[in-house]
Amino acid sequence: MTTETSTPAAAAAPEHPSDYVHGYSRTEARRLGDQADTLAELLHAGTAYPAGSRVLEAGCGVGAQTVHLLAASPGVRLTAADLSADSLALARARVAAQAPAADVVWHHGDLHRLPFPDGSFDHVFLCFVLEHLPDPTAGLAALHRVLRPGGTITVIEGDHGSALFHPESPAARRTVDHLVRLQARAGGDGLLGRRLHPLLTAASFARVSVRPRTVYADDSRPALVEGFTRRTFVAMVEAVRAEALAAGLTTPEDFDRGVTELRRAAEPGGTFHYAFFKAVAVRP
Amino acid sequence: MTTETSTPAAAAAPEHPSDYVHGYSRTEARRLGDQADTLAELLHAGTAYPAGSRVLEAGCGVGAQTVHLLAASPGVRLTAADLSADSLALARARVAAQAPAADVVWHHGDLHRLPFPDGSFDHVFLCFVLEHLPDPTAGLAALHRVLRPGGTITVIEGDHGSALFHPESPAARRTVDHLVRLQARAGGDGLLGRRLHPLLTAASFARVSVRPRTVYADDSRPALVEGFTRRTFVAMVEAVRAEALAAGLTTPEDFDRGVTELRRAAEPGGTFHYAFFKAVAVRP
Repeated sequence: MTTETSTPAAAAAPEHPSDYVHGYSRTEARRLGDQADTLAELLHAGTAYPAGSRVLEAGCGVGAQTVHLLAASPGVRLTAADLSADSLALARARVAAQAPAADVVWHHGDLHRLPFPDGSFDHVFLCFVLEHLPDPTAGLAALHRVLRPGGTITVIEGDHGSALFHPESPAARRTVDHLVRLQARAGGDGLLGRRLHPLLTAASFARVSVRPRTVYADDSRPALVEGFTRRTFVAMVEAVRAEALAAGLTTPEDFDRGVTELRRAAEPGGTFHYAFFKAVAVRP
Repeated sequence: MTTETSTPAAAAAPEHPSDYVHGYSRTEARRLGDQADTLAELLHAGTAYPAGSRVLEAGCGVGAQTVHLLAASPGVRLTAADLSADSLALARARVAAQAPAADVVWHHGDLHRLPFPDGSFDHVFLCFVLEHLPDPTAGLAALHRVLRPGGTITVIEGDHGSALFHPESPAARRTVDHLVRLQARAGGDGLLGRRLHPLLTAASFARVSVRPRTVYADDSRPALVEGFTRRTFVAMVEAVRAEALAAGLTTPEDFDRGVTELRRAAEPGGTFHYAFFKAVAVRP
């Protein structure tokens, strides 16, 4: 079952929030799907909620993680919220195709102003969301409110500072840094993963436990090279080309050279390392 | 039992090889011991050789890893080699104190010119050694020769590019970069971890398998903050102060500010991430 709610908060949400650094194109939706499928086991391992649990996915986007959350936790009562109506429509279609029996309420609105009573959820899950918020502590505090005492929050974030590639290349490094800079200009933080422990602590969560979940790909793992290095990470960097040029951060030649050199990490003899961070904490 | 060999190659080895970026002080020997004890489980897990195996530890240094290798593999016939006679003496004392019954032959000499016949060893182990070699492929090729066909090589290296700290700080980042730059000037590579797969492949090893072994420390793990962030990583950076100043890379003020800001990663609210890389491969 999938249902949709419409709330006053939802009415205030823009169709295309302009500050989502990765954009809203179809290519980007496919990239997010590729990324989620490649990383599902790495990121979702250890997260399984009992059937009947009231779970909130805050910032479900195009549903890339939603389908994996539902696969790991059959029988949960999921509320999936996002700021973008277009993303929600894609998420709904994805869940209808991959988990047609799932019990999902779709909520169009801002996670800072959720219309749910205090303590409405047993568990809150969010993945690649805090990195986009100007004030992640405020976002976490808003989620703290709708979580029942004793309930858990699970947060997964990347940290682009952890991107290590061989061959090392100053041009490639600059190009990755453009992504971080653009995200900072949009009010976000591409280096947020390392901050999860202090952020959750500041938002009054207890028993905060953070662990890196690391992807490392070399010639011995061609599927990961293709699925992660090339189609997730390099694709994410490539996707900010127009924005980086418009912002005057780089020239077409320099950007393209950076991408070409970054792509060598996905060619024979190349290697790539990236650390996600996964946090679990409890509302006291 | 511990014995010591003296060979023509050993006679050519300098007492104090000048290009070891971390130096040879007593403080440094203690730092290496702290580091090894904190990281022993992380780095040595999965490495256990059958009793009776002929094992070579190439570049045993002060024996910081040697004692852990012996603890994990009781009954091996270990040859521990190092370029520095002083380090070997410290290693010998450490093993005498912690593993008095171990069967160890101490060899003073250069791993590129080991006086052992082809195929002398069932297993070769080296930790934090390749990062110091001007030509790590040549070093690996020399070890390939003394390994019997079907024997394994295990290589552990760090990669200073993986150091992520919160709070992020440009001064701290520059100070970490000095370490990388000094190591490069000495002919080494502080970013070697990510290169292990291509290096072992180039040296004709087969079934090369590399995995990151990551340390992450925050307020929830005070012993790791103390043992790794402060006493291992920050201490390693602090130890190159004189060398960085002599090389004109920085000023006392800038260096000290960088260390002060780096140290915040070990204070309340701080976090620290570092990836080691562990490779296992086979001589075909």
